[in-house]
Amino acid sequence: MAAAPIMLFCLNDTSTRWMMAVYTGSFAIESKGFTDIIDITAEVTQIMEQSGAGSGIAVVFVPGSTAGVTSIEYEDGALSDLKSAIDRLAPQDIHYDHDARWGDGNGFSHVRAALMGASFTVPFENRRLILGTWQQIALVDFDNRPRQRKVVVQIQGE
Amino acid sequence: MAAAPIMLFCLNDTSTRWMMAVYTGSFAIESKGFTDIIDITAEVTQIMEQSGAGSGIAVVFVPGSTAGVTSIEYEDGALSDLKSAIDRLAPQDIHYDHDARWGDGNGFSHVRAALMGASFTVPFENRRLILGTWQQIALVDFDNRPRQRKVVVQIQGE
Amino acid sequence: MAAAPIMLFCLNDTSTRWMMAVYTGSFAIESKGFTDIIDITAEVTQIMEQSGAGSGIAVVFVPGSTAGVTSIEYEDGALSDLKSAIDRLAPQDIHYDHDARWGDGNGFSHVRAALMGASFTVPFENRRLILGTWQQIALVDFDNRPRQRKVVVQIQGE
Repeated sequence: MAAAPIMLFCLNDTSTRWMMAVYTGSFAIESKGFTDIIDITAEVTQIMEQSGAGSGIAVVFVPGSTAGVTSIEYEDGALSDLKSAIDRLAPQDIHYDHDARWGDGNGFSHVRAALMGASFTVPFENRRLILGTWQQIALVDFDNRPRQRKVVVQIQGE
Repeated sequence: MAAAPIMLFCLNDTSTRWMMAVYTGSFAIESKGFTDIIDITAEVTQIMEQSGAGSGIAVVFVPGSTAGVTSIEYEDGALSDLKSAIDRLAPQDIHYDHDARWGDGNGFSHVRAALMGASFTVPFENRRLILGTWQQIALVDFDNRPRQRKVVVQIQGE
Repeated sequence: MAAAPIMLFCLNDTSTRWMMAVYTGSFAIESKGFTDIIDITAEVTQIMEQSGAGSGIAVVFVPGSTAGVTSIEYEDGALSDLKSAIDRLAPQDIHYDHDARWGDGNGFSHVRAALMGASFTVPFENRRLILGTWQQIALVDFDNRPRQRKVVVQIQGE
């Protein structure tokens, strides 16, 4: 999805003004599945910078029904704790109707993804994402095999 | 909420340009409650198309505190599995303080809705929602009775 | 974050037109932590009004990795029920790897926040947030101590 940076000028007065616009970027990332939690803050930041917008939102969206997006303090302890909580919430080793019908064995992945949500919106200002010091944006891949994931980041800003 | 399609032109140069704009649509849908999961992808797509915008976001929002919005592979097995996980997360047959106070018996519905979230944002480009092949947008009605739900879809795009 | 209201005029035709723009506001709020649920609807409404936009979205975002944002019927019973469900989902008194590493004792807070999500988007029209009658926007502070929280509200609208 190549797209030109946002540079719409308002030419009808003497000042040049940046107008609101949409910029859609994406990136691919390798995951191991099984609640693989991947820090994608750098990739989202890069697309935000490419957009040319100074303030606005970054909508981070993962197409597919076995992955989610959230934010977390990206350190091994918290990652391990989140995995444990998700294991309790939708254990892998119980019965899933999805598996009985389709045989792909990732019923637990679908449930986990629907509960976390595939979309995450973060505002930015002065070309900086408004995140806490210890807060990173994370793709969480719940599938039961390695995947190459495409993540879409749409910038709306001015 | 009748609204004209987005057709703002920038007339100050020789090219006609579509500008970013807001378009708010809505639709009503019948639900059976009790974690009724309803595929609303077609309705969201229609409002996106009516907006006239080529790229942007669709913010899908359900007013009310006993329903949520997420995405899922909309097939009976995964739907049944999601319902089971939600039953484990906030069972219907335990004590709820909300019920003790208000007597409407839907304390479990409020808890489930607050955990899932009432808002879901999906980007689109070239007039197509950016969803996975097996990923649908779903309204989840957690109330303890049939409801007619209004779902609001706000398009921001250009 | 002081910012001027959104008042961009399109001067190239005879009518004055409000254009889409971004307005970023924020407020500070005291929380007691331990799943303190705070109604922030009034603060979000005020920033929406200050923006000058008539229709658009309010993106409510809490920087930090131990708090979340959702909507709920803000009455004591439902709040207590939500707290109980979150206690079951990620109990405070089990082992957390985060605590073993960092010793700050808020591993459960990180897990809870990552599951709820730090971002909530609500549309508005005719200068009114599109919420249900009994639906309020809530900051949920999961940390294990009192905190002063900053909440960012970014308005995108016209």
